[in-house]
Amino acid sequence: MAEARFTSSDSGRSASPLAHAQYVTFPEGLELQMGGRLEEVTVCYETYGRLSRKADNAVLVCHALSGDSHVARHDEADDPGWWDILVGPGKPLDTERYFVVCPNVLGGCRGTTGPNSLDPATGKPYGKDFPTITICDMVSLQKRLVEHLGIRRLLAVIGGSMGGQMVLCWAAKYPDDMVGCIPIATASRLTSQSLAFDIVGRNAILHDPRFRGGQYYGHRDGPAIGLAIARMIGHITYLSRESMHLKFEGDRLSPREVSTEFEKRFSVGSYLGYQGDRFVERFDANSYLALTLAMDLFDLGDGRESLGTSIGRAGCRWLILSYSSDWLFPPEESRLLVEALGHRGRRVTYCNVESPYGHDSFLLEHNLEVYGELVRAFLGQLNGRGGAAPGGGSRGTAAAADPASIFHPDRLDYQRIISLVPEGSSVLDLGCGHGELLYRLHELGFPKLTGVELDEKAIVSCSRLGLDVLHADLNQPLEAFPDQSYDTVLLSRTLQSVLDVEGLLSEIVRVGRRGVVSFPNFAYYKLRRMLVEQGRAPESPGILSFKWYNTPNLRFFTIADFEELCTERGIRIHRKVALDTEAGREVTEEPNLNADLAIFVISR
Amino acid sequence: MAEARFTSSDSGRSASPLAHAQYVTFPEGLELQMGGRLEEVTVCYETYGRLSRKADNAVLVCHALSGDSHVARHDEADDPGWWDILVGPGKPLDTERYFVVCPNVLGGCRGTTGPNSLDPATGKPYGKDFPTITICDMVSLQKRLVEHLGIRRLLAVIGGSMGGQMVLCWAAKYPDDMVGCIPIATASRLTSQSLAFDIVGRNAILHDPRFRGGQYYGHRDGPAIGLAIARMIGHITYLSRESMHLKFEGDRLSPREVSTEFEKRFSVGSYLGYQGDRFVERFDANSYLALTLAMDLFDLGDGRESLGTSIGRAGCRWLILSYSSDWLFPPEESRLLVEALGHRGRRVTYCNVESPYGHDSFLLEHNLEVYGELVRAFLGQLNGRGGAAPGGGSRGTAAAADPASIFHPDRLDYQRIISLVPEGSSVLDLGCGHGELLYRLHELGFPKLTGVELDEKAIVSCSRLGLDVLHADLNQPLEAFPDQSYDTVLLSRTLQSVLDVEGLLSEIVRVGRRGVVSFPNFAYYKLRRMLVEQGRAPESPGILSFKWYNTPNLRFFTIADFEELCTERGIRIHRKVALDTEAGREVTEEPNLNADLAIFVISR
Repeated sequence: MAEARFTSSDSGRSASPLAHAQYVTFPEGLELQMGGRLEEVTVCYETYGRLSRKADNAVLVCHALSGDSHVARHDEADDPGWWDILVGPGKPLDTERYFVVCPNVLGGCRGTTGPNSLDPATGKPYGKDFPTITICDMVSLQKRLVEHLGIRRLLAVIGGSMGGQMVLCWAAKYPDDMVGCIPIATASRLTSQSLAFDIVGRNAILHDPRFRGGQYYGHRDGPAIGLAIARMIGHITYLSRESMHLKFEGDRLSPREVSTEFEKRFSVGSYLGYQGDRFVERFDANSYLALTLAMDLFDLGDGRESLGTSIGRAGCRWLILSYSSDWLFPPEESRLLVEALGHRGRRVTYCNVESPYGHDSFLLEHNLEVYGELVRAFLGQLNGRGGAAPGGGSRGTAAAADPASIFHPDRLDYQRIISLVPEGSSVLDLGCGHGELLYRLHELGFPKLTGVELDEKAIVSCSRLGLDVLHADLNQPLEAFPDQSYDTVLLSRTLQSVLDVEGLLSEIVRVGRRGVVSFPNFAYYKLRRMLVEQGRAPESPGILSFKWYNTPNLRFFTIADFEELCTERGIRIHRKVALDTEAGREVTEEPNLNADLAIFVISR
Repeated sequence: MAEARFTSSDSGRSASPLAHAQYVTFPEGLELQMGGRLEEVTVCYETYGRLSRKADNAVLVCHALSGDSHVARHDEADDPGWWDILVGPGKPLDTERYFVVCPNVLGGCRGTTGPNSLDPATGKPYGKDFPTITICDMVSLQKRLVEHLGIRRLLAVIGGSMGGQMVLCWAAKYPDDMVGCIPIATASRLTSQSLAFDIVGRNAILHDPRFRGGQYYGHRDGPAIGLAIARMIGHITYLSRESMHLKFEGDRLSPREVSTEFEKRFSVGSYLGYQGDRFVERFDANSYLALTLAMDLFDLGDGRESLGTSIGRAGCRWLILSYSSDWLFPPEESRLLVEALGHRGRRVTYCNVESPYGHDSFLLEHNLEVYGELVRAFLGQLNGRGGAAPGGGSRGTAAAADPASIFHPDRLDYQRIISLVPEGSSVLDLGCGHGELLYRLHELGFPKLTGVELDEKAIVSCSRLGLDVLHADLNQPLEAFPDQSYDTVLLSRTLQSVLDVEGLLSEIVRVGRRGVVSFPNFAYYKLRRMLVEQGRAPESPGILSFKWYNTPNLRFFTIADFEELCTERGIRIHRKVALDTEAGREVTEEPNLNADLAIFVISR
């Protein structure tokens, strides 16, 4: 079957690839989503680590378009895997802890039944007679494999790009069969632009005269030109403008020494020609057609509602990752997933990982300290373990060890804020930072805690504490949260740094039954004095003191100003707590003069 | 020659295209930049309007890759032109005022000598024997045409994309031969990403078996598949992700009713197939190869220095336009041109026009009120006419007619700022708005005035006043301006709205021999009172009064604060003027208490 087409020239692969591959054949065949069936299907897969006695530590890895079952090396002597950075002993997907399963997909050409497999009915390769398959069919077959391995419920399903589509499909099709889902650099459906690139690639293959209507097996040559052209287009879309600049501008006019029949005029030309040629040696054109079409047909809708009823049915936890420079599966597509799940009340952590390397970022080490650690922390929680304590070794941030730590137990404002949150409330903390406030609530037994944060390192900290956090900018609407979906929405010492104050306040009272908002009072007598007596811009003391020209605080207002805005906008004020945090006491007389911090409880 | 390949099916074109085309043949031939020569060259061109007696109103239009000489319709009965939105009677490029010349380029296939022309040496089409041509060769031939028409000096050269490359080449090659240059959506060289797309397109053509090494003329068929594939790739790059979404998401799964052999599964698929097929009917594959290679080889360097010595030699004025969503020729490439010209002291106006439509934006009506009007204003100035007076009819903004107009003669702060600018100074005004201050300086006879502004409508206003303005964000370094390149740099009432205060101040004293900086004094006694007596955030009265939650002012500081920062950063203070603008008088006693506005003259 497929192995006959493997060669030794794929970079990094030896002449005997997949030395650890295992095979299972399901003679009962597979019904297909678009109609028709395959009479017999074989799955090629690899496993890593050991399945626990309870069979509760299995993680299914779904590969992307040109991947295969060899996700990581099995030992020192083994060939490199395509995700060695993430999978292995001690790695984020720790094979000493988890049982990792990675099958080659249905329709592929690396061992699992695909167009170049023999059709049992004819004894010849399927070729053009291979039926149209979908992402859903791939997942059905994966489910069969998982059952075959004795796994009733997966700990997690993880994958990027096409692999991410499979993760979404798992959630929609088998909503009870996993504890966690990790879709990476993916979308509920392709953008029109991404679709367009796939279509041009397929046209190049289909119209290559040596494609011979798909029946090129056994001929001396196949649609090598068309497949190489398709791969070249794909390669451009996997990178970014910036990463191509980094890679090719230095020697722009100096083609590299490669053997290819394609144009070699520029360094980028020699690279594309080389990549096209190498791909043809290891990949089958009919598989390329089948898999890209499956990706293109994948469509869970682009509406929050429709998405909610598909993937939102799964009660599992979610870690969703996108990459800032990915233009093939752009971050806004991941945000749509987050919103759809948010509207179904699902537990989600989302991070748009900063990276200049485009779609390929999920295969690269850059910023692995963010996205790899998020995977590690997320998987750790699924296992039944809660989050680590802030000072704990597994957290290991400098903040916790610092004597001036913001986890310092005596923060008066936190104490008062917490006292204003009704017991048992669900709580959303906007601008949650490293989780200081949320973790206190967690310790107190609050059941549903979510954060919103802009800083990706802070998101990692929160995730290590077992908290769910969404990566978002508070100057944008909080699309992930339905009306009145949290009992309490917190905004601690953050309003003064937000440009769209009105927008944020109206979002707080839309999303929360109650909002608890704290902010520094600019009319505090010491600040007044600086202006009046010294003629200087008021400046607060403290660990995070800033100057007027570099402060993150962009809005200056007083307790009276805040009250007036609430009145004008029809926002009800239920409680007002004024604090002198310096003196460590609550203020009752003339708060607008004597308080340096105010806490308001508001609602619509 | 080329005409034989024209058909009636190109959308919008009749069976007898180019009814107004004229031809001139240069029997002396053309020496080529990469070596070799063409023994005889013919240019197909069209003209619009009349050449003035002095021959000083000629504008040369350079077309993009797939354009031709038919830039606009000649009359009601004529076919549409490719730039009808810009060129015609009363249009920005007004054919009642200017003599417009548009030739088909060398290497093209719409009348001018190209690969499908007959080689005089053999009597057969050149085909693969057509020599490698460059953008520079195209320009040499245009220069020959311009001379043939009796034009010694062009009023302007204008073009987008490949046409913009020609504009840059004109400046480098004939630096004294035009009064103004308007390069649009272009670059000094292609990005690696754009290069990559061209290379894949050429590979598709070169490896189409029906390409026959370029000698397909006279055969029943040519490399239609390869050319169509190349065109499809190109089409994706001319649009943007957003514009493709707008165009194809609505009927994503409903292919349009078109006749094509290409895949038609999705609406975007039917569109690409249709566009590919239609292109093949009107364009020649060898021309496509020749022109894309010329674009790819075009390289004025990406260094400010090298670019300065090429295009910077031209003493003409510049209008440079880019489009915010253009990823084929991204805005940063235009900024590089601006910087290179700025470092040579050239007069430049630059605008990065807001548009969701990608590279194609320059052919579309969207935001024509900005970029079309910039072209109109710029051309108007080249003609010897100065800018219109602020209240003049041709300016026509509401501001001028408004009694509260910022052009009101009595602005005390402007009077004082102007008095601080030494006579004859060159002046750079940062955050110049609609040109209020600069226009006053212009009226007073100051010779060199430049503005920097973020608002594109304000840039149009300035351009109508005859001012040069660069579109830029003051939070970024002022890369377009060399050290000490202006006598005076103004920053009027803007420092308080900038986040990077330190960065901007250091740029002011780097670029200017003197900086004149005005800002509201937050320690003004009335503002102090609001805070002290009322406990409210200070708020200035006036036409543009804001509330604390929506003010553009993000930095609050006093005269004393500013002085301290200057001292700490080693910035010298030469003069300090304190004003009570409400009372209309200068303040001498206790300025930090009694002045609402301060003006400082500073330097490094």
